[in-house]
Amino acid sequence: MDQHHQLTATASAASAAVTLAKPLHCIVKLGGAAITCKNDFETINEENLNIVSSQLRQAMVSGPCHGMDWSRRPGSSEIPSAVDEFDDQSDSDSKKFIVVHGAGSFGHFQASKSGVHKGGLSRPLVKSGFVATRISVTSLNLEIVRALAKEGIPSIGLSPFSCGWSTRERNIAVADTSSVKKALDAGFVPVLHGDAVLDSLQTDVFGVYDRPPTETGATLLKEIAVREDGSWSVLKPELQDMSKQVEITVAAHDTTGGMVTKISEAAMIAKLGIDVYIVKAATDHSERALNGLLREQIPDDWLGTIIRLAK
Amino acid sequence: MDQHHQLTATASAASAAVTLAKPLHCIVKLGGAAITCKNDFETINEENLNIVSSQLRQAMVSGPCHGMDWSRRPGSSEIPSAVDEFDDQSDSDSKKFIVVHGAGSFGHFQASKSGVHKGGLSRPLVKSGFVATRISVTSLNLEIVRALAKEGIPSIGLSPFSCGWSTRERNIAVADTSSVKKALDAGFVPVLHGDAVLDSLQTDVFGVYDRPPTETGATLLKEIAVREDGSWSVLKPELQDMSKQVEITVAAHDTTGGMVTKISEAAMIAKLGIDVYIVKAATDHSERALNGLLREQIPDDWLGTIIRLAK
Repeated sequence: MDQHHQLTATASAASAAVTLAKPLHCIVKLGGAAITCKNDFETINEENLNIVSSQLRQAMVSGPCHGMDWSRRPGSSEIPSAVDEFDDQSDSDSKKFIVVHGAGSFGHFQASKSGVHKGGLSRPLVKSGFVATRISVTSLNLEIVRALAKEGIPSIGLSPFSCGWSTRERNIAVADTSSVKKALDAGFVPVLHGDAVLDSLQTDVFGVYDRPPTETGATLLKEIAVREDGSWSVLKPELQDMSKQVEITVAAHDTTGGMVTKISEAAMIAKLGIDVYIVKAATDHSERALNGLLREQIPDDWLGTIIRLAK
Repeated sequence: MDQHHQLTATASAASAAVTLAKPLHCIVKLGGAAITCKNDFETINEENLNIVSSQLRQAMVSGPCHGMDWSRRPGSSEIPSAVDEFDDQSDSDSKKFIVVHGAGSFGHFQASKSGVHKGGLSRPLVKSGFVATRISVTSLNLEIVRALAKEGIPSIGLSPFSCGWSTRERNIAVADTSSVKKALDAGFVPVLHGDAVLDSLQTDVFGVYDRPPTETGATLLKEIAVREDGSWSVLKPELQDMSKQVEITVAAHDTTGGMVTKISEAAMIAKLGIDVYIVKAATDHSERALNGLLREQIPDDWLGTIIRLAK
């Protein structure tokens, strides 16, 4: 559960995408702070999750849509009846998506109490913490899969084994990639979860800033261009050739490694030719990004960060 | 989700076991009928599951044990406090186990409504059924993992991709095996789920009978010996060289394929040198089997079926 693993879920999803039978439309990373209530232990932000699910469904599926969660809720005796409404014709046209989500108020308590992110699985506390963290994050993953499925998105939860038990991490990453690819090729939407520890450091903001967004003078970086060698510079806002300065500012303020990690992760994906949008979930801004309305031109009233290959 | 897949979870778990760093003590298959309430939609048999978890913990772990489920229950605001009680010394001695469970009243409704076990994922109903079945069975898997973890068993849920989306099923089985092996080597107890369709046909009985257990004259087969070529014969009860006759009786009554599949699956595992016990969960009989008390001699008052390599 170190920075390497934070990268794994999204980046290995991205590398799976480049060898697909049909092209991938989008990898959506849902921040933990957007889909959970950050200060309430293991509580989902139902309102945001519903809006996110609806926006995703509209961007993915054209044509009729059917609920795919036919399970009862804990404590409810109601049996779902969605099954009878089916017009069972050939598949409606749907774009290929991967969803990756953070942990927010799930997993963090268990991970930080046990120090599982520091390794040492032979210690009982760390081992217990691994089990407890995985239970918590798996519960969240299942809830997100259910919300998407209820909306009509054919979502399949896939759990990366994101820490600890193997010394051959690369092999695990490869196995995950192949599951993601198989699910995509069969027309499903893989739903992966990221890291419980780092994720909790994030804030629910509009995009990437040059310094902590709470500081005065913090500037939202709207467009970042990545070069083949992995270096990057800010295209928007125009800074009169100050992009190097911004890089230094970002690094100087990034005590937790969160922002640099985020940009590096995005740069790895952008290098594959895949545009990355970092945007506040469940807003008009995320909706426009999902529907591909920002590819040619970024409107002045759009708030978010686009990271893509330099032209 | 055909018979091939019914075999996959347990048999690939067994083949993972033979290359382990430390020997595997036991693969426990929990029947769906034992751990769920068969006639109540998606309802867990809490009482049985608690007894099963306790029996497993006693068989697995010697020394102090700590709860490993630190998540809240849906609808409850209580935050678990088990974390503070830790005596964080080196790992207590624990035996290697794999748990495989059936689906019972989970998954069956979704699978049968959609016909997902017959394939045809391009049809919307089947695709939705696949998603819905997986949600249902994953929910059950998570509940079982939580029950075991609460008892102090370091359980890790692993979801075999048991149907449909790949034409190269063997590759998937290999990937699953490697996850199972990695989890075991790191000291965890992998918890896999089996098949939602076939499982629902099973009945909660003492073991394998020569005909449906509800029929008059049905005889519990207590010991079955498997030869290297995969053929098998009944050692107990002694049938005055009638074992061939029993084989015919089993086949003749096995209209659903359930019993022959069960014996074949067990025989595949027995051929690897691993003893298979088919036994009613949460009973004194299962407890004796788990604790290895039946290896040398089978007491007359023990009810169950042992399938092992002929000596």
